Amino acid sequence: MPVVSDEELARRRREILEGARVCFARHGYEGATVRRLEEATGKSRGAIFHHFGDKESLFLEIAHQDAVRQAEVVARDGLVAVMRDLIHHPERHDWLVTRVEISRLLRTDAGFRARWEKHQEVLDRAVRERFEQRDVAERMRTDVPVAVLTTYLETVLDGLIARLASGGSAEGFDTVLDLVEESVRHR
Amino acid sequence: MPVVSDEELARRRREILEGARVCFARHGYEGATVRRLEEATGKSRGAIFHHFGDKESLFLEIAHQDAVRQAEVVARDGLVAVMRDLIHHPERHDWLVTRVEISRLLRTDAGFRARWEKHQEVLDRAVRERFEQRDVAERMRTDVPVAVLTTYLETVLDGLIARLASGGSAEGFDTVLDLVEESVRHR
Repeated sequence: MPVVSDEELARRRREILEGARVCFARHGYEGATVRRLEEATGKSRGAIFHHFGDKESLFLEIAHQDAVRQAEVVARDGLVAVMRDLIHHPERHDWLVTRVEISRLLRTDAGFRARWEKHQEVLDRAVRERFEQRDVAERMRTDVPVAVLTTYLETVLDGLIARLASGGSAEGFDTVLDLVEESVRHR
Repeated sequence: MPVVSDEELARRRREILEGARVCFARHGYEGATVRRLEEATGKSRGAIFHHFGDKESLFLEIAHQDAVRQAEVVARDGLVAVMRDLIHHPERHDWLVTRVEISRLLRTDAGFRARWEKHQEVLDRAVRERFEQRDVAERMRTDVPVAVLTTYLETVLDGLIARLASGGSAEGFDTVLDLVEESVRHR
């Protein structure tokens, strides 16, 4: 067997992730068949599943990449900044629809749900830690438990994702986010 | 041809709608095949499509029934009341997932989107008219345009639907809705 360098392996992995993201975005989770994943990544099914095990794992890994990126934004600027980021990057909206399409899986497949939650943990942790930062905590209202504020912000995020995934306009949404931001702050 | 009374026709129509709702909820929009719709309604495809034309029309009609019911709640008690209604009726959550599953269709099929919006108009109108009711207008904050308040409330509703459709808990959500209600009101 030929020796393959670590860089080469990392490069192949990256190529599969990038191609697969486009494929899931275009065809949806169910519609991204193995054949289509092969076409989109330029790799054989053998190569793809050597790196990622199965389609579910591949999908969860891409979602995990998003969660990591969003966690960074949350740590620096909070959940509302993640939402502003979404409305200002329409080129990423294609992918959002897959987030929505897995609702039934999340609801009916406990195994998938457990794996999904594990892959999203990094984001949940970032949200929790954000509220613990002293300067943030000082700005936040204290008459409502932090858990309620978190659920509230996550619900607005889910609503925004639903809106963008179904082709709704993000025009004027910055003003909505101003209102959201104000509503979790101390007066 | 035997004469069929108007009541009998209305009864058949109602039976098809009720069976089809269960079928869409269980199998999703795509998964609700003609064969499954026949089984769920106890009617032949001929009978189903005599009443509703095609699967898309049947689905839109069921969604329209929901919009009419929600419009009544909006007119009486507002959009937040629609959300409280959702969290207190878990038996209806099965259906919500279909709302989410049509995101891609809404995004990519302009014809479907136009028909969907037409069927939801009754709800949009109720929301607009609610904000024009004098006692409601007096309670609402005036430093933010009504259009922004509307988009905000609709986004929270979409987020709640996304949450429930993917099996998320509605526990404690009443407190989130208290916050939402307060955030659109005059201080």
